[in-house]
This record gives sequence, structure tokens and C-alpha cells, in this order.
Amino acid sequence: MTRILSFIISAIILCFNFAEASEIGGSMEKIKSKGYAMFSQDGPFKPYEFERHAVGDNDILIKIMYAGICHSDIHQARSEWNEKEHYPMVPGHEIVGQVTQVGKNVTKFKVGDYAGVGCMVNSCKDPNCETCRHNREQECCDVVFTYASKDKFHDGEITQGGYSSNIVISKNFAIQVPKTADLEKVAPLLCAGITTYSPIQFSRVRKGDKVAVAGFGGLGHMAVQYLVKLGAEVTVFDVSEEKREAAMKMEAKNFVNVSKNADFCKDHLNEFHFILSTIPAKYDMTAYLKMLKFGGEFAIVGMPATKNAPSISVPSFVFSPNRKIYGSLIGGIKETQEMLDYSVENNIYPQVKIIRGTPDEVAKQITEAYDTIVNGKVQFRFVIDMRGL
Amino acid sequence: MTRILSFIISAIILCFNFAEASEIGGSMEKIKSKGYAMFSQDGPFKPYEFERHAVGDNDILIKIMYAGICHSDIHQARSEWNEKEHYPMVPGHEIVGQVTQVGKNVTKFKVGDYAGVGCMVNSCKDPNCETCRHNREQECCDVVFTYASKDKFHDGEITQGGYSSNIVISKNFAIQVPKTADLEKVAPLLCAGITTYSPIQFSRVRKGDKVAVAGFGGLGHMAVQYLVKLGAEVTVFDVSEEKREAAMKMEAKNFVNVSKNADFCKDHLNEFHFILSTIPAKYDMTAYLKMLKFGGEFAIVGMPATKNAPSISVPSFVFSPNRKIYGSLIGGIKETQEMLDYSVENNIYPQVKIIRGTPDEVAKQITEAYDTIVNGKVQFRFVIDMRGL
Repeated sequence: MTRILSFIISAIILCFNFAEASEIGGSMEKIKSKGYAMFSQDGPFKPYEFERHAVGDNDILIKIMYAGICHSDIHQARSEWNEKEHYPMVPGHEIVGQVTQVGKNVTKFKVGDYAGVGCMVNSCKDPNCETCRHNREQECCDVVFTYASKDKFHDGEITQGGYSSNIVISKNFAIQVPKTADLEKVAPLLCAGITTYSPIQFSRVRKGDKVAVAGFGGLGHMAVQYLVKLGAEVTVFDVSEEKREAAMKMEAKNFVNVSKNADFCKDHLNEFHFILSTIPAKYDMTAYLKMLKFGGEFAIVGMPATKNAPSISVPSFVFSPNRKIYGSLIGGIKETQEMLDYSVENNIYPQVKIIRGTPDEVAKQITEAYDTIVNGKVQFRFVIDMRGL
Repeated sequence: MTRILSFIISAIILCFNFAEASEIGGSMEKIKSKGYAMFSQDGPFKPYEFERHAVGDNDILIKIMYAGICHSDIHQARSEWNEKEHYPMVPGHEIVGQVTQVGKNVTKFKVGDYAGVGCMVNSCKDPNCETCRHNREQECCDVVFTYASKDKFHDGEITQGGYSSNIVISKNFAIQVPKTADLEKVAPLLCAGITTYSPIQFSRVRKGDKVAVAGFGGLGHMAVQYLVKLGAEVTVFDVSEEKREAAMKMEAKNFVNVSKNADFCKDHLNEFHFILSTIPAKYDMTAYLKMLKFGGEFAIVGMPATKNAPSISVPSFVFSPNRKIYGSLIGGIKETQEMLDYSVENNIYPQVKIIRGTPDEVAKQITEAYDTIVNGKVQFRFVIDMRGL
């Protein structure tokens, strides 16, 4: 009897250790996940169960708490960027949650920590890869985006995003989220935050600079906050009069409703050191170029649907000489961590509208949210509470 | 008799003084000029006699010795930029000659000096004009181009260019040409020189930088010389195999014949700090953007015909992030003088092919030269000897 008891106790201890080991050391078991997916480019969202790859030695498993809805999600889910996307698609690349399992090589995170995931989940990280070596993983030829991306590091599986209960991710691509962070609002920093923070740093915006933000939505309202914090004088260009008040509350200096005056640029010729365009639709790029000062920079982060992508031609460049245009794509992981720490420290967060309810209710609300965003009616970021899933 | 003699002598002295005064102080008489004009957009060139405005107190009169033929002349003379040009048109904005008359306020030049004229002959020069104040007259709203431009400072006359015997120009827009200059080769510096020198300075190209010049013609071969002189490592992109040897002679490091490989950019991804495009035709702007290093700059000076103007769209920018494009338009007068002094001092000149002969022969040769240039067959700049006119 004692032996039997002893055996049972040993077995319990062993099981316990194994469970503990699986938290620390990983296992080769696939991870079950629940999420919200679109099953075709016409939607709507429906609850969806699927599997993620196992937690490898360098991976962590995050139980997702909140996921933001980015305008890019809409373009991608509706096949507005690529002709043939893979469905069912679980979008979402603004993710925050709690670490529930870590691979055996992971010391950066421990179970219970908060972690964030942005637009990327992997890249080659080869020391010979120039972009990875310089912390610009988003440019790596082998970058794996958080969803709708073929993951060459996991048998070519198609990645699924953050509108889901959990995610497995390389420790190198997970962002440490301080315990002091406002968790309900952190998720959008991982895309909207870094995407606007990065070009502002790259263009070295300084105190007193005259700057502009074109498109005052999810990205735009983050940009305004970073720019105001730097001491720049910010003008906001948007098509929606309803956003004027919010821009002023965020201490923008001016708000220009471009829908009221097609020639709006004429009032602002040669005015700005820096303009950031977050516009996700067709617009007149030349008008913004003309508003730059000599040597000024026009950074583009807004990515319209391919068929609506605006373009700019050689004469526009030559006749607004010495004004520069460049695109900016998210930001590297190192810079994303820097942005997150900076944002939390300076209390810079998105204004969020939380979606929560039963899975069916949430699926319906996400579907509706997409239309609200496309119509420019959200102030400013939908965030899905995934904790009920 | 003595009185009569004295009167005659006085009269002679008076006449002499008057003639002298007209050289120094100017007169209100219009200036007769001979030139080569196109009488419609289909050409050909024919000798043409016309008048220029009188030499004002701040003007000088230059007897033109040499005038370069720029690809822009062809676009403009053939109405490829603007729908309705004014004919007869005397093109030419690469001009060098000798000063034969100066207005009474002019001390910068004296009769006998050599002087150059580039693309501009006037601007507002108002101390309140931001662009004029900062020596960027080419951006002034009231800039008057050397030909085919309405001159608001002279009763709205249409300017006529340098394929002519003389030109009247404000002292502020005439460039001092050192006596040591190689006069036969100086003219093209006034456009091809400054147009390429200016962006190279603006982008702060330094010794050891990897740089590229796209389009190895009149402008391109000047750019290569400036870049080599700075100690940059230069790659030339062109469609014509015949130019390889010349590029190597100018100490370019590489010559890439882009007509041989549509995917040429793949061999040079992320390679260049700086690329200068002088291409006067349609081309793939994205390919050049992809060849820039992180933070690199792509300067555009080549101005194709409007209908062939290439353009670039938002996704190209975003997916080659942090690579900048800008246009550059000639250069200001101060910088033009700096470029000219630098070029003469460093023996940097265009390779020229001189057109000379009787007026009818010259007119025919200019007509033929236009086709030769459009076909990319000139190495590298036609210059018309105007001294026989």
C-alpha cells in the first residue's frame, strides 16, 4: 500500500514536473487556438478554431488579452492588396497578452510577463543578413508577417493573427510590456505606434518644427501625440470635420478639413519641415510635396488598396525641388521596444473603443467595425477584448 | 575756322562720349539679334532676326560666342512639355559670350569680360521673397526662363534663347566666366553642369560613397565627372553599349547596360548612397529606389516629355522604406557661380561637338543634332559656335 501510495505520489510529482517542464522547455505539441476569421474576402467574421505550431525552444506562448483592428487588416482581409489571399484568415497584428509558456532557451520572458506582438513574427536573423543585422527585420527577404504570410520557418504554414486566444512567437519578435502599461490600450502601439514613431525619428523631427499629419485615424492620432510630445507645431489634415475637436484636444495647432477646399495646399505652400501621410485612400501626393519647406521630408505610411494607390510623377518632383518623399514600413523590433517603453513612460496611448461580448457578438462587432473604419467614423482604434475567448 | 574746327572736335568728342555712355549707361533702344528658330513644333531650324529689350541700368549685353544644345531644348521646341508654345522659338539656355555693353548700375561686369547665362534671366529679387532671399531664384513665382517664358519685367515679352548672336540680361543673372576657362566648353556648364552639381551637393555625396548615374548623356557625363572628383565610386546605367568606353575613361567603376537585362536592379539591391537620374524618357523609378541603401537618396533631374513622364506609387515607397526621392531644378545663381568656378578650377568640362558653318549650314546641323540627341547617339554635348552670326 505504501509502495502504491509512493508510486502514485511519484507519478503526480512527475506529471507536475512534466507540466512545469512543458512551460519552461516547450513541447512538440501543436497549440490549439480559437479566433475570429473571415472565410472569404466578403466576410463576415465568424468564430474559428485552428492550430498553431508547437512552442519551440526559442519561442513563447502568449495568451492574448487584447488585439487592435488596423486599417491594414481590412485591406488584407478583403484581398485589396493581393489578388488571392488564403482563407480562413484571422487578421490582427496589434497584440498584447500574458506569457503562459516559454521555450527552454528563453530568458527574456518568464511565465506571467506581459508581451506584445506587432506585424512580424520572424525573420532570418542571419548575422550576414544586412537588414536583420541592422535591426530592420521588416526588410528581411524571409520576414514572416503576423498573419496571411507563409512561414518558411514552420513548414510553410500560413500565419494567423491576433484576433485569437493565443499566439506562438519567437522570443526575438515579442516585445516586453511593462507591468505599468495600460493593457487595454497597449495593443495598437505595436502597429499604429511604431509605424508613426519610426519615421518621426528617422526624419529627426525637433522641437519647434512645423509638421503635418495627413489622415487623422488610428495611425494619425498616434503621430500627433508623438509630434506634440516632441514640441513640434502640428497641423492635421483630414476629410472629417468631426475630428477637429479631437485634434485640438491633442494640442494640434491647426486642423484643415481638406474636403472643404480642393486647393487647400495653396494656403500652406513651403510650410512644413515634415509631413506624415497615414491616408489609406487615393489622394494628391503633389499637394503635400508642395507644402514642404526646402529640404523637408514627406513620409508615407498609409497603404491604400492597390487599385486606389496614388502615385506621383517626375515633373511633380522637379517642380517642387529638394523636397523629399520616402515610405516607411512599421519599424524594427529594437525600435518597437524603444517606442513601447517611450509611449508607456510618456503616457502616450491610442484612444480605444473596446469590442467585447460572446464570441458571436464579437464576430458581428468586428464585421461592423470594418465598415465604420472604412467610413472614417471611428475615434480612433477598435480593440477586441480576447479574454472571453 | 578755329571755331568750326573746335565745334567739329567737340561734336566728335560728344559722339564718342555718347557711344561710351551707351556702353556704360545703357540706352532705351531695342537690341537687334539674329538667331536660329523653330517656326512650329515640327521644325526645322531656320535663321531668324528679332529684337531684344533695351539694355537697362542693371543689365548687360552679351555677344554670344557659344550655345549648348540641351535635351530640354528639344522637349520645349517640340511642344513636348506644354501644349501650346510660342513660335518662332529660339531655344538655348547654355550660353557663353563677351560683354559688349553694361548698364549704368553695373559694376560686376565690364565690357570685354566673359559672361555666362543659364536657364534663368530674371526673378523678383524681392527681399521678402523667401526663395530669392535664399538664392533659389529658380523657385521664385516670377522667375523668367531664358526662352519661351513670359517676361513680366519687360512688358510680358516672350524670351528668346541663346541660339543667337546676343542676349540682354540682368547683371544678377549673368555668371562671371574666368578668362582661363575653356570657352568652347563652358556653355553646357550653365545647365548640364549646375543641374547635376546642385543635387550632388544637396545630398552631400562624400568620398567613398557608392553612387550611380542613370542616363549617360549631356547631364550624366557631367555628373560622373563631379562624382569621381569627389572620390565617390560611380556606377553608370545607360541603354547604349557605345557609351561604356567613355564611362570607363571618366573613371566610372561600373557601366551597366540596362537594355540587356530588364531585371538589372536585382544585381544592385541596397547598393547606393546616392543615385542621380538624368533620364529624359520613361523608366522604372521603383527599380532605382530598390538599389538605394537605407537612408539613400534618389535625385531626379531628367525631365521626359510630359506624355512619357514616369511615376511611382505609394506601395513602391513603402516596400523600399527609408529610401528618399526628390527632384532638383537647375540651381540658384549663387550656386551656379560656385559650380562654374569649381569646374574651371578642376578642369571639369563637357565633351563637346562643335556645330559651325554658314547660317544655313548651322540651322541644318541643329535640326539634325536634335534627332541625334533623341536617339542617344551624341557623346556628349553639341555646342553651336555663334561667332559667325
